Amino acid sequence: MGIGMSHKLPSKKEFIDGILSGDRMLLSRAITLIESTKAEHQDLAQDIIEGCLPHSGDSIRIGITGVPGVGKSTFIEAFGNHIIKNENRSLAVLAVDPSSSKTRGSILGDKTRMETLSNNPKAYIRPTPTSGSLGGVARSTRETITLCEAAGFNTILIETVGVGQSETAVHSMVDFFLLLMLAGAGDELQGIKRGIMEMADAIAINKADSGNETAANRAKSEYKSALHLFPPTESGWIPKVTTCSAFHDKGIPEVWEIVDEFVRHTKTKGFFEKKRKEQANYWLDEAINQELHRAFFQDDTLKNEMIAYRQKVQNGELSSYKAARDLMKLFFE
Amino acid sequence: MGIGMSHKLPSKKEFIDGILSGDRMLLSRAITLIESTKAEHQDLAQDIIEGCLPHSGDSIRIGITGVPGVGKSTFIEAFGNHIIKNENRSLAVLAVDPSSSKTRGSILGDKTRMETLSNNPKAYIRPTPTSGSLGGVARSTRETITLCEAAGFNTILIETVGVGQSETAVHSMVDFFLLLMLAGAGDELQGIKRGIMEMADAIAINKADSGNETAANRAKSEYKSALHLFPPTESGWIPKVTTCSAFHDKGIPEVWEIVDEFVRHTKTKGFFEKKRKEQANYWLDEAINQELHRAFFQDDTLKNEMIAYRQKVQNGELSSYKAARDLMKLFFE
Repeated sequence: MGIGMSHKLPSKKEFIDGILSGDRMLLSRAITLIESTKAEHQDLAQDIIEGCLPHSGDSIRIGITGVPGVGKSTFIEAFGNHIIKNENRSLAVLAVDPSSSKTRGSILGDKTRMETLSNNPKAYIRPTPTSGSLGGVARSTRETITLCEAAGFNTILIETVGVGQSETAVHSMVDFFLLLMLAGAGDELQGIKRGIMEMADAIAINKADSGNETAANRAKSEYKSALHLFPPTESGWIPKVTTCSAFHDKGIPEVWEIVDEFVRHTKTKGFFEKKRKEQANYWLDEAINQELHRAFFQDDTLKNEMIAYRQKVQNGELSSYKAARDLMKLFFE
Repeated sequence: MGIGMSHKLPSKKEFIDGILSGDRMLLSRAITLIESTKAEHQDLAQDIIEGCLPHSGDSIRIGITGVPGVGKSTFIEAFGNHIIKNENRSLAVLAVDPSSSKTRGSILGDKTRMETLSNNPKAYIRPTPTSGSLGGVARSTRETITLCEAAGFNTILIETVGVGQSETAVHSMVDFFLLLMLAGAGDELQGIKRGIMEMADAIAINKADSGNETAANRAKSEYKSALHLFPPTESGWIPKVTTCSAFHDKGIPEVWEIVDEFVRHTKTKGFFEKKRKEQANYWLDEAINQELHRAFFQDDTLKNEMIAYRQKVQNGELSSYKAARDLMKLFFE
């Protein structure tokens, strides 16, 4: 349902009360407000977020990535059904995919790909926003997490495609980062950006079925050795590697076990809360930088100057620092 | 030699002419100006950089990192002497080590550790600046590269300790990134920050001597397999792994061969120049962000507000975006 249609917008209080009582319709409409670029929608959205913030945070936030074809939708369906049925949890599934506006091949665009999960009353699937910069999408995703947590969802799954910069953003908003892989000659990794493997708290090698089990197990031990070469994370957690077949619903409880072990490990040592505070700090600095950046780059009088200066810096005629100083003078005048 | 001593400062023209003719004394004094925080020194430094820029760029810039104890000084000495003697090159050695002001255990602080190299007329070793933020040190290092290139040095080696954020900065200012490692049980990697291995264009396992050769060769094949699991770089370059003993001067020409092959590979395909342009763009954006950031965070009226807002965001009482918006209003008023 769109906003700004014939429906009168509910009040801030109606929104907050509705979300806190678990009203999905109001949750969805509030998220649409968050994603809206209209100033009055943004103002209302911020009020709703403020009201929900004190009721948020009590969840496990899981990032999940992997190249197209790795079976993310099938995995999320199997994983989601498992934790709802057997772990008595509730689940909200979000996505950070700034490219989806262009490709239209959006991962969560089509809810029918997660049929059983999308019909489960303890699951909430939010389709990918259809446009926006990474900065904007990252912000709205973080705010959506707040609303989903306030609505009572205690597991948040944030999906992204392992091909761009969005992984870093997702990594900075989750407690646990899961990388889905396929067994094979290493070529399948070409789609995964450098640096993503080092973010993973666990790697699950999917499609370990139909005669592919041996290759999957070999890949598992290869990745284990490779991860062993990486330095340990701050909390001392050593990334785990496992195999699964989401399609045949095999190895899924084991993935949850890893998440659970990770949460216990980091909560015991205080790293869980510490990371959340660091993330809050990070996003405050990011938001400040974004706002400053926007003020600067939206300054119409600077646009042509900016192009000329960039050209000069690229051609080695001007140092980047001198260019920045000159532009700054123009900006603050 | 300090600046602002009894010596009168040379003029802009004297500095530029001197640097272009290879005068090391003037080069060193100009670098000291770059590192100075005094406004008049900065202005003169920027003028000198402008004059040197058209004569810079024709070099190979190599970043080198590794934890303390890996033998960086010894390696640089052996490597430097090799490329000067056998490859007919000249070499400037710089360092990015923002922590050195605290630890005083600075890598290049003591030239005597590279005795033969520091006495070689075709080598120029610049001790680590003794203070500064990473942003500041990174900028002054980039500007120092410009001056060294203008002074005729066609190989620039930038050293950093693999324990902090400085690797990302160094990676963004060099053509080739070399990681020095030791053979061992993987534990020695604990000092290397996550993500650094994925930046490497080559890994050299040092101290492959004194009965350590077998372990070094095993480490070599382990790292080779691990790097194989990483996605390839944009240029299609596959990171190489080699062993060496800087102390016994073994395997050093092979490291240079890798650098040389990399340069030929990337220059043929246009990636060398492309990366330099991207780096120039990156540093312009960084400089703009830094200047905006500085203007914002140096605003005295905002300081206490900032502390209060940060506290609220950390405690989940306020969203980071709302906090940033409020602070921005205060800033531009």
